[in-house]
Amino acid sequence: MSRLIKPASRVAGQRKDVWSIVNEAAAASEKPVVNLGQGFFGYNPPDFVVDAAKEAVERVDCNQYAPTQGRLRLRQAVSDAYSPYFGRTLNPADEIVVTTGANEGMLSVFMGFIEPGDEVIVMEPYFDQYISNIEMAGGKVVYVSLHPPAKGDTEVCAASEWTLDQKQLEAAVTEKTKMIVLNTPHNPIGKVFTKEELQGIGELCVKNNIIILSDEVYDRLFYTPFTRIATLSPEIEDLTITVGSAGKNFYCTGWRVGWLIGKPHLIQYAGAAHTRICFSSVSPLQEAVAIGLEKADKEGFWETSKKEMKEKMNRFNEIWHELGLPYTEPDGGYFVLVNLSKVKIPEGYEFPPHVAERPRDFQLCWFLIKELGVAAIPPTEFYTPQHEKEAENYMRFAVCKEDHVLEAAKDRLRGLKKYM
Amino acid sequence: MSRLIKPASRVAGQRKDVWSIVNEAAAASEKPVVNLGQGFFGYNPPDFVVDAAKEAVERVDCNQYAPTQGRLRLRQAVSDAYSPYFGRTLNPADEIVVTTGANEGMLSVFMGFIEPGDEVIVMEPYFDQYISNIEMAGGKVVYVSLHPPAKGDTEVCAASEWTLDQKQLEAAVTEKTKMIVLNTPHNPIGKVFTKEELQGIGELCVKNNIIILSDEVYDRLFYTPFTRIATLSPEIEDLTITVGSAGKNFYCTGWRVGWLIGKPHLIQYAGAAHTRICFSSVSPLQEAVAIGLEKADKEGFWETSKKEMKEKMNRFNEIWHELGLPYTEPDGGYFVLVNLSKVKIPEGYEFPPHVAERPRDFQLCWFLIKELGVAAIPPTEFYTPQHEKEAENYMRFAVCKEDHVLEAAKDRLRGLKKYM
Ligand SMILES: Cc1ncc(COP(=O)(O)O)c(C=O)c1O
Ligand SMILES: Cc1ncc(COP(=O)(O)O)c(C=O)c1O
Repeated sequence: MSRLIKPASRVAGQRKDVWSIVNEAAAASEKPVVNLGQGFFGYNPPDFVVDAAKEAVERVDCNQYAPTQGRLRLRQAVSDAYSPYFGRTLNPADEIVVTTGANEGMLSVFMGFIEPGDEVIVMEPYFDQYISNIEMAGGKVVYVSLHPPAKGDTEVCAASEWTLDQKQLEAAVTEKTKMIVLNTPHNPIGKVFTKEELQGIGELCVKNNIIILSDEVYDRLFYTPFTRIATLSPEIEDLTITVGSAGKNFYCTGWRVGWLIGKPHLIQYAGAAHTRICFSSVSPLQEAVAIGLEKADKEGFWETSKKEMKEKMNRFNEIWHELGLPYTEPDGGYFVLVNLSKVKIPEGYEFPPHVAERPRDFQLCWFLIKELGVAAIPPTEFYTPQHEKEAENYMRFAVCKEDHVLEAAKDRLRGLKKYM
Repeated sequence: MSRLIKPASRVAGQRKDVWSIVNEAAAASEKPVVNLGQGFFGYNPPDFVVDAAKEAVERVDCNQYAPTQGRLRLRQAVSDAYSPYFGRTLNPADEIVVTTGANEGMLSVFMGFIEPGDEVIVMEPYFDQYISNIEMAGGKVVYVSLHPPAKGDTEVCAASEWTLDQKQLEAAVTEKTKMIVLNTPHNPIGKVFTKEELQGIGELCVKNNIIILSDEVYDRLFYTPFTRIATLSPEIEDLTITVGSAGKNFYCTGWRVGWLIGKPHLIQYAGAAHTRICFSSVSPLQEAVAIGLEKADKEGFWETSKKEMKEKMNRFNEIWHELGLPYTEPDGGYFVLVNLSKVKIPEGYEFPPHVAERPRDFQLCWFLIKELGVAAIPPTEFYTPQHEKEAENYMRFAVCKEDHVLEAAKDRLRGLKKYM
């Protein structure tokens, strides 16, 4: 018999997470599941990146500890790749830090600036790691809604119809507000914030001295003009840390390479926290990503990548037209939110207790996996209980998969007809 | 002008770290420096591991997110490799978690169990990341000394002569003691704790319900019998999390792959914290490490690795006999502590202020780099100010370098003769 060891409250009392529920449902399903759930790619990084990785793992200097703030070649490559967008030369020495994926980059920002009691504004729906990362630093999350389109239950809508109410945002600011987290292109909505929306957010932050953590991991996948908030004014840039992800950029989510870009007075502390969290990030794959950034333009990779993803998106979404199910047309990223309010789950259909007690989208998720063999993500996982009603008819599908997988999914989804 | 943004106190007020000082001195030195400072390897991982990495980065499943708790193949390989030492079958499903290096593994343990105000006992000298990681979780560090050998200034001593006073350890335990950090083989001393010492520590922990975090990253490099504290009794095992590092085992410190081993009631919470910190660890290199562990025995790698390191150690230490400088003969690991009390820095020798204000070993470090072109680490970096006097005549040299580098260092160190 084990003695009682109390865990820290920050990890105690976990409810079953969405990934275990999806996996469990998949195990309970008769046929192998077509997985459009988690946002990993169903294919490899481009050859010029894979080849660079193969060469890097043969080099002594690449196999040993990278500098804590990142390999110089990668910081230089990030500077070269991003300076044109930022309209000034980003200094690789003190304006860029390489992190263990965007995720640990964001944790480093929270750890670098948030003290117990500080408030951080987060928009709902949110990328779920924000919350635990903010709480790990002792911060309090203050939620502001991205309101769904009024006609979302009945019509195909634009991602831009998911709206932030600037008044509500202003009302959320208090004396204790230290930071706001922005995500554009947005997961799961596919919203790309307009220049005007960003201007409103940015000015509010300047007025109240609020740090802006701009999560731009899908920054190479936009299908409408894309603005980086850091570029709107020097005052806004002084408050902004921009987050990038090689995993998302180069189809290698498992490599855990990301970066932070910002002015030295911000990056310095995020970098110090990063050193304490991971010491340094994976060295040979940093080198490969550096080479990837150096070659991407010449290879026409960004254009191809965007074009191919948009084509996947369009082809996949044909199924919703066929079924007459409304969805949100994404302006960026590789997720699509589909509204399944028209789908009727047969009366008396049985769910395990931990699914039955969650909102309708969890039940839809279970049902889709078990009856049709298609896995997707219930978006209320990205909401607080107060607002989850807003999203309980939606389901998130990831299209960063091979074409034959998307076609197989469409084929299975035709099975929804008999439940409508 | 930037507005004032206050960093979190956990990263504010950093004193200049030892690595920047070493780099600065190196820059100020006339000749290129022979670097025996940081503990990275001067050579590549074995071919069977490098080849596995090259194959892994060609596989879609290896390039995408690994399961948060680690790739199953690696958890299985860790179980297969370590179960014989633990005398029972370690369950890959819930007794092993793969982390982003041992470092993030330890942070996950602190984050999983330490609440603000909890006390964690750490022995001096310590691996420096322990301190910031414990503090990040809100813990208070309580220090207990590993006392240097009485004759350390004049005679070659055994690592076992650095001793823990069990009475002092007992006196350090309070109501609030939640955890103790143990490191064996020890960095920087090279001490391998004896079974009796571990028994004393383990029984104290059982009596007081204290979690044992046993940092065994140098577990393949021991030159005297090596005991794992988790194997001493079921009661001790119930309280122990053991930390391992692929970086140290396979000469790839830059890969950031490590693991935690322990009973499910412990691993569960460390794993939950790990998921929040990094989400998951680098996937293709996990696969390569798994293959490394699978093949290491057949390749005779562990034997070769230990034999080669011990030979490097012996050959390098000849220089101290030649110079008549006493050192601590390591029983494990790849660091050697040398006592330089006989070395006289010329009167009036000038140091930059941030070196002048530190203990004598920092000045010795600067002097060695600048005058002889050899970099080593001043061990008072691993002490609190109260106890740094104990180590101010020591210097830590890392021998995990190519033989010609070690020979070059010896050659330069002969220059010490004129300062004795
Ligand atoms: C909005 C958002 N931010 C950050 C991340 C994490 O990126 P990384 O894999 O680089 O840690 C994700 C991954 O899904 C994401 O969707
Ligand atoms: C005692 C000790 N523990 C842990 C580590 C960190 O290991 P890793 O590189 O796997 O994070 C080191 C590295 O120097 C160390 O000396």
